[in-house]
Amino acid sequence: MDTFYNMQSDQVVVNRLSINPLKETDQRDTPSPCILVIFGASGDLTGRKLIPAIYNLMKDGQLPPHFACVGVARREKNREAFCTEMQEHIQKFSRTKATTADLEAFTEKLYYYKGDFQEDTLYPELDKFLQELDKKHGTKGNRLFYLSTPPSSFTPIIEKLKKYRLVYDISETRFSRVIIEKPFGHDNKSALLLQNELSKNLSENQIYRIDHYLGKETVQNLLVFRFSNSLFEGVWNNRYVDNLQISVAESIGIEGRGNFFEGQGLLRDIVQNHLMQLLSLVAMEPPTNLSAEAIRDEKVKVLQSLQRFNEEQIENFAVRGQYKEGFIDGEPVIAYRSEPHVKKDSQIETFAAIRLQIENWRWAGVPIYIRAGKRLPKRSTEIVVTFKRTPNILFHKHDKNNAPNQVIFRIQPNEGISMKFNSKVPGSTNLIQPVNMDFQYANYFGKAVPEAYERLIYDAILGDGTLFARVDESLSSWEFLTPILQSWASRPLEEEDFYPSGTWGPTSVDYLLRREHKNWKPL
Amino acid sequence: MDTFYNMQSDQVVVNRLSINPLKETDQRDTPSPCILVIFGASGDLTGRKLIPAIYNLMKDGQLPPHFACVGVARREKNREAFCTEMQEHIQKFSRTKATTADLEAFTEKLYYYKGDFQEDTLYPELDKFLQELDKKHGTKGNRLFYLSTPPSSFTPIIEKLKKYRLVYDISETRFSRVIIEKPFGHDNKSALLLQNELSKNLSENQIYRIDHYLGKETVQNLLVFRFSNSLFEGVWNNRYVDNLQISVAESIGIEGRGNFFEGQGLLRDIVQNHLMQLLSLVAMEPPTNLSAEAIRDEKVKVLQSLQRFNEEQIENFAVRGQYKEGFIDGEPVIAYRSEPHVKKDSQIETFAAIRLQIENWRWAGVPIYIRAGKRLPKRSTEIVVTFKRTPNILFHKHDKNNAPNQVIFRIQPNEGISMKFNSKVPGSTNLIQPVNMDFQYANYFGKAVPEAYERLIYDAILGDGTLFARVDESLSSWEFLTPILQSWASRPLEEEDFYPSGTWGPTSVDYLLRREHKNWKPL
Repeated sequence: MDTFYNMQSDQVVVNRLSINPLKETDQRDTPSPCILVIFGASGDLTGRKLIPAIYNLMKDGQLPPHFACVGVARREKNREAFCTEMQEHIQKFSRTKATTADLEAFTEKLYYYKGDFQEDTLYPELDKFLQELDKKHGTKGNRLFYLSTPPSSFTPIIEKLKKYRLVYDISETRFSRVIIEKPFGHDNKSALLLQNELSKNLSENQIYRIDHYLGKETVQNLLVFRFSNSLFEGVWNNRYVDNLQISVAESIGIEGRGNFFEGQGLLRDIVQNHLMQLLSLVAMEPPTNLSAEAIRDEKVKVLQSLQRFNEEQIENFAVRGQYKEGFIDGEPVIAYRSEPHVKKDSQIETFAAIRLQIENWRWAGVPIYIRAGKRLPKRSTEIVVTFKRTPNILFHKHDKNNAPNQVIFRIQPNEGISMKFNSKVPGSTNLIQPVNMDFQYANYFGKAVPEAYERLIYDAILGDGTLFARVDESLSSWEFLTPILQSWASRPLEEEDFYPSGTWGPTSVDYLLRREHKNWKPL
Repeated sequence: MDTFYNMQSDQVVVNRLSINPLKETDQRDTPSPCILVIFGASGDLTGRKLIPAIYNLMKDGQLPPHFACVGVARREKNREAFCTEMQEHIQKFSRTKATTADLEAFTEKLYYYKGDFQEDTLYPELDKFLQELDKKHGTKGNRLFYLSTPPSSFTPIIEKLKKYRLVYDISETRFSRVIIEKPFGHDNKSALLLQNELSKNLSENQIYRIDHYLGKETVQNLLVFRFSNSLFEGVWNNRYVDNLQISVAESIGIEGRGNFFEGQGLLRDIVQNHLMQLLSLVAMEPPTNLSAEAIRDEKVKVLQSLQRFNEEQIENFAVRGQYKEGFIDGEPVIAYRSEPHVKKDSQIETFAAIRLQIENWRWAGVPIYIRAGKRLPKRSTEIVVTFKRTPNILFHKHDKNNAPNQVIFRIQPNEGISMKFNSKVPGSTNLIQPVNMDFQYANYFGKAVPEAYERLIYDAILGDGTLFARVDESLSSWEFLTPILQSWASRPLEEEDFYPSGTWGPTSVDYLLRREHKNWKPL
């Protein structure tokens, strides 16, 4: 697939000749030989997530037999030291226990390449190194570059990869793909500019915008749950649904990343990507097939249907907050403004909530509430679909107990699905009590659920972009959020926007729902 | 409420002036003082079910403070012997553990009266005895008669109760009610004749036709589940439901009751009452309120909407069987025809299955399969609502795993509700697997579920007929089943109608569904 940009009209034109109809088979394609090159190999992500994920893919037999992995970073280090370091990370962070034999088998395919990705000289040399590995490992020139670097480096790295022919034209039989980490721009303009730069050197189907939320089982199961269960699809619309809620709660603060977070804020860090992805999956129409393009076509339609806000609506429907000092799990924690590398008068939000609406036939009139924040009482990500109450006729005397039905997708922790419905309390009265039916992945399938990065790296090796954000998704999300960002930037935080750590955000967030006679589902 | 019969048109005319609008409150009425008189007190039912149920009602504080219970039977026995016997039964059959103090408190209200209910002389003497108990226990003349006797005795006993003024006119302030056990007639004619006799001496609201299935928690919960959960009511119709199945499987045989069963057969014993009650509850329209009459009005409409069969349809849609010798739980068991008191060439059915249809707006076109039988591989009563498959578009390669959604009401054992839906198998493929969400009463509410008879006796004391079969329900059920009974009576059993004990009935029962590309849900 190729994507072209028309800067004038902000339109994305998608050429869909290359849709692969075979994506629907239950047997996935055999992954092609390739070398995975990680830029930023000394970073936290590489050791904690990427290497353990690649290790587990190998253990599950999901890597191509002809495979190598190269970590690129500036630090002086030999291969042995890098491998030892990575073995330690695997032992610490892998979801499966690693034997010495496993670790050794894995590091046979693991290399370190010292170099500064800002220097042109790196690229031709790295190219030679990779070609040698091709000979040794039979990887046939195929490349998957993982840019675990600051976003400002995306364009320069990709320019140089192109200039020195480490990324190929899509007409070649060998492939080269680039995975980029979030954030993809910091507003609608910058995202468009970034995409414009990227698209000079890469086709859209060579770009994999990673959002690790999309690699989570419950997130992927949203599609299966919705479109293989007639029981739910029949009521998944504004005739039956009362409201949708999506919450991404974290109890941690910014974990020393003051520099980073001061340039971001919660809306950019969590809402623009994770939360909007969850929203589009839970609300999308059935796709025409299971190809990456068909699915992303439907997802992007949801984002494009979001009611755009004027200034007054922003003040009414968007709430921000910043954490003050407080207590998490009984332990005192400091205010955001006291965190290292944070300005004493920082106006950055650590909490955001929006009441939005999807203006299409399925969802018109259904209020949608999203919230995300740091230093909330607990870590929990949930999608809650609340159904309308039954007519208040038969059990109205029991109204306080007659709770609306809910379907709850728990993204983390304890990935699973539960349903809340009403049941009779045993005994001689007709008392009603809400009860839960629950389904947990880990319990049910009796094995550890794969880590999000495993699935995503595997898919990128396969060339399946389904679980990656397509450029128009990213741009549509920015399109909706940029006016809110601009409005917030134009006004300082007010007294009531600050919330004590360990509470559920500023009090105004409850008002968002209360004025419509609704409540947040407790997490 | 008063009921009048018009024998000519087989019509029942219901006078509904006496509907009690207070029945909707969550506080149930305080039960009035009364004496419960059991005819047939030396029978199995009294010791195993009735007395333990009354005991548990007392323990739960649900009996009126002014209460007494009198067992009437022919055997010579004094009160002390009867009480000791009943204490032993309570210790053996009660769902709760009984202390000596509990048992003594209970037997303070328990009496034995020796007498033959066929003799006129019993009644004036019993009346005197009850009047004395009224003085002692403050029971104010209120009476609840429980006829735990052969059905042939119903009419003579009630005639004598009326003749000697033990049952009162409904204009009186004190009440008298009569609980009668099944069967209520043995076909449409006899049921109508029986009702005609009863109604000479009792008003319809004095008659409580007990069906212990209606006292089970899951059965009562059908109403709550359906009408307090919008998620399900939205798909509870022929647009979404593929088929309904109701199974009442027993692994026991006739347990020495050859005399009784030879005069009955499975259709009369299980289908006419229990199974038709379950069907009407799962399929009924929402009632206008929760009064006994409103609920039974809707239930009877279901039975009246059943497609009536002509002879050809009976041969096509009704299957019977009789068990041969075989194995249950690995143990050999004898054939029905070898059971004591059973004719060697008995034509009585021990298995019945019918494919029926409710011809109303909600259910038109939805096949309904019911089956019941003895000497099946296990004991299990379930209602299964199977939903239509999703369009075969997205996950068709996984079709074999893409099971239809099901909602399953387990009536026994392990009363509860479960749902079968499709989920993604964790990992990098999009494999689908049906999973279950489950809800068990006993687990969830953390206490023993009351026995069916507790609720029913309690309701009869309160005068709430909701969970008892109204005469028109019973007659409608007979109306539907009588042609089948007549057809079966006119044809001897054939070779293939006999099934080995420990199998799921004659093979033709599978064909009922297979020709429509459906299958029985395994129990």
